[in-house]
Amino acid sequence: MKIELLRYEQLANDLEELIVSGALRPGDRLPSIRRLSEDRRLSVSTVVQALRQLEERGLVEAKPQSGFLVRRASPPRPTPSPRATPENAMPVDVTQRLMRVLQMGLQPGMVPLALAFPCRSLMVEGALQRLYSGVARRYPKLLESGSCVSTNESALVRQLMLRSMSWGGPLAEDEIIITNSCTEAIALSLRAVTKHGDTVAVESPGYYLMLQFLESLGLNALEIPTDPRTGASIDALELATRQGQVAACLLVSNASNPLGSIMPDENKRRLARLAAERGFTVIEDDVYGDFHFGERRPWPIKAFDTSGNVILCASFSKSLSPSLRIGFVAAGKHKAKLSLYKTMSSGGTNPITQTVLAEYLASGAYERQIRNLRRTYSRQVNAMHDAVSKYFPADTRLGYPQGGFVLWVELPEEIDTSLLYERAIAEGVPFIPGELFSPSRMYRNCLRLNCGNPHSPEIDEAVRKLGRLIDRSAQRFTL
Amino acid sequence: MKIELLRYEQLANDLEELIVSGALRPGDRLPSIRRLSEDRRLSVSTVVQALRQLEERGLVEAKPQSGFLVRRASPPRPTPSPRATPENAMPVDVTQRLMRVLQMGLQPGMVPLALAFPCRSLMVEGALQRLYSGVARRYPKLLESGSCVSTNESALVRQLMLRSMSWGGPLAEDEIIITNSCTEAIALSLRAVTKHGDTVAVESPGYYLMLQFLESLGLNALEIPTDPRTGASIDALELATRQGQVAACLLVSNASNPLGSIMPDENKRRLARLAAERGFTVIEDDVYGDFHFGERRPWPIKAFDTSGNVILCASFSKSLSPSLRIGFVAAGKHKAKLSLYKTMSSGGTNPITQTVLAEYLASGAYERQIRNLRRTYSRQVNAMHDAVSKYFPADTRLGYPQGGFVLWVELPEEIDTSLLYERAIAEGVPFIPGELFSPSRMYRNCLRLNCGNPHSPEIDEAVRKLGRLIDRSAQRFTL
Repeated sequence: MKIELLRYEQLANDLEELIVSGALRPGDRLPSIRRLSEDRRLSVSTVVQALRQLEERGLVEAKPQSGFLVRRASPPRPTPSPRATPENAMPVDVTQRLMRVLQMGLQPGMVPLALAFPCRSLMVEGALQRLYSGVARRYPKLLESGSCVSTNESALVRQLMLRSMSWGGPLAEDEIIITNSCTEAIALSLRAVTKHGDTVAVESPGYYLMLQFLESLGLNALEIPTDPRTGASIDALELATRQGQVAACLLVSNASNPLGSIMPDENKRRLARLAAERGFTVIEDDVYGDFHFGERRPWPIKAFDTSGNVILCASFSKSLSPSLRIGFVAAGKHKAKLSLYKTMSSGGTNPITQTVLAEYLASGAYERQIRNLRRTYSRQVNAMHDAVSKYFPADTRLGYPQGGFVLWVELPEEIDTSLLYERAIAEGVPFIPGELFSPSRMYRNCLRLNCGNPHSPEIDEAVRKLGRLIDRSAQRFTL
Repeated sequence: MKIELLRYEQLANDLEELIVSGALRPGDRLPSIRRLSEDRRLSVSTVVQALRQLEERGLVEAKPQSGFLVRRASPPRPTPSPRATPENAMPVDVTQRLMRVLQMGLQPGMVPLALAFPCRSLMVEGALQRLYSGVARRYPKLLESGSCVSTNESALVRQLMLRSMSWGGPLAEDEIIITNSCTEAIALSLRAVTKHGDTVAVESPGYYLMLQFLESLGLNALEIPTDPRTGASIDALELATRQGQVAACLLVSNASNPLGSIMPDENKRRLARLAAERGFTVIEDDVYGDFHFGERRPWPIKAFDTSGNVILCASFSKSLSPSLRIGFVAAGKHKAKLSLYKTMSSGGTNPITQTVLAEYLASGAYERQIRNLRRTYSRQVNAMHDAVSKYFPADTRLGYPQGGFVLWVELPEEIDTSLLYERAIAEGVPFIPGELFSPSRMYRNCLRLNCGNPHSPEIDEAVRKLGRLIDRSAQRFTL
């Protein structure tokens, strides 16, 4: 499981870390080649190789007489405009439209700009699979430890508790339930704390899967205005929960989807306090929390919870492998009910797979993997930001992702991305149309792009194509 | 994976097969020792050892001058009395009571008469676990084949199609979805074909997990009278579905739980036709179908389905291991919607575990395993039947299980098994009280016993204790 980096790669990564974290800012000069060579005890040619790699990654540029400077990104774009969300909660009806979109857009041969999946080569599936073989041999009775009813493998629970130390933990052992994915964790949480007809507050724009959950459970959605930088508005949540008409609040507080916003600690603290005072539940999806672009791992709302009203859901589908199918929920005071729902939803969780994940986490490889992914996702999002800035209309507004690997794009008012979508599909360049991120179908002039893949010439060309289609749509409109 | 039987065990098993299947009936004489020895080319002492084992299993008895006779079971008991079920559908409210029962009754040290679990030593978890190691090594890219969205491993789908040949298959490849258990398969099916407030027809008495599903989805239950021998009444279903007010019918047509009834083919055909004509869905749990006591594998209702209105759910939790967590659903015309719900419930299903199961099924070991389990479960159910006949009041009525491994017991009218339960727990002998098998809390004088374990002296003693507690309850009542 050891990742052997070449020396120049190591140096390039270290410098990238400094740039991504903001320690080195656009326009800053990198240390000189001689300086780097001396300080790091590397040959000059190794340092040069590292700097060339940084150039290729689009992070630095060579300036005659000045050495290497941190590249100025394309001029920052205005973020999406603030919008008024509907005053009342409403039923959700997104699934049919989503299915149509996916059926059209997930044909083979499409450029992978639609679903938020990381490139498979970034996953560590080989390492996990090798662990399967070893785990199965080393613990010959493991399968006998599982059950038809909800069961945790204690080795995995210990690792989750340890990992939570990096964001305000430890989680309490007795509130953790291992699930078959983060998806299952969220679905169970919603079922445990709501009943048919209840209202759930969601981010607007917010992840369509969350809306699908609400739809399938007969819950109403109340859209909460969500800032591209700071996430869901706490003032709006404060107002919405005054009369006790909101049963739960479902959000992605760290690197929200699609905006990539991170809620400031103070807002998280306020929300946790509100939930405690007013007796509603916060269900938080922290699946992107490890992929922050800033220096510090943002804490989840759970870290500020003292009442047990906050439920944290997460998994390793975006960091290790989407096919492992292991997630978890830290259920706070809802543990007993969630545990029952887990048993009714799928029984226990396979103990061998749980142990494989536990061993991977215990090996220390996870830290290296997310450090690598943070760098990679940040680079890919930046490259996408640059490409969109270059190819899309001048008055395009862009999300300000502080983590994750999607980019939210707001086009001129007159563009309807659901119509655009059909033309885009015909050219093999799908995306997710904006209307799917809101039950009231706001955001018809927005779209989401996946940045989970290296910014290849093919992807750059796809963004260019999209830009041209948008131009043509805009012209048609003005004629 | 090869199970090497000693010669005498093989002979004992073959004779047991003849007895269990009814080819040899109570009172019939077994072939003589000399005859068996000659025909099977075994030593006399091996044959004697086999006959002794059959004696120990309670299947034959030695009669002076007559050799070995198939043992007459205790005189057959009358089956539970037919009851009128409530005319109208009603909401379900079973979970709270069930949780109380399980919390009290699942402490360590209790005799395992409550939950319907087979004894762990009957499972083949060692063999499965060895396969994990081999599968992970032999298919190094397997984990990369999985996904965040619902995915089948084709090797497993092929095996399921092949196996379905033994009961009227093949299933169609494109209607199968691999799930994380039979539980998940049923939960998804219900969610896909009903909406909040709908009515679902269930067996009465019927499995409490089914009732819990209904409760958690806000569905109403309509109890269908269920015959101890022939299962749910088709006449009642015919009547109930006349006005289109039943959205789905949820049942265990082969070895129902708790009665152990098997619906005759003609009834299955009628029900499939009704569903097609009237447009409701039949959701069928066939998890016990392989554990029939008769000679022939009973077909599921699915085998009679020509319209796609029948959904079949099953798994290998009762035959191979409860901790594998793999089930499947053959979704008929509801495939697309179920597939979507699967994605929303837990995403895909781990490809390594799917392949482990596929390899086990392909090895042929499964056939040996279920042949062995059929014999074992039948023997254990018979032993429980005998013990209850011996220790319980004379007017006790008993289910007539034709498969599976539970026994339904109807006590005299005045006994309330929910009250009895608390006294039974105090003596360490839990069961499942009858009222949990009906939303209207009928069956308060009934209880269900698990026969998943060998009928040890400890279990015999537990049944005796239960019998005494019942006697005492009856006396208290008559005083």
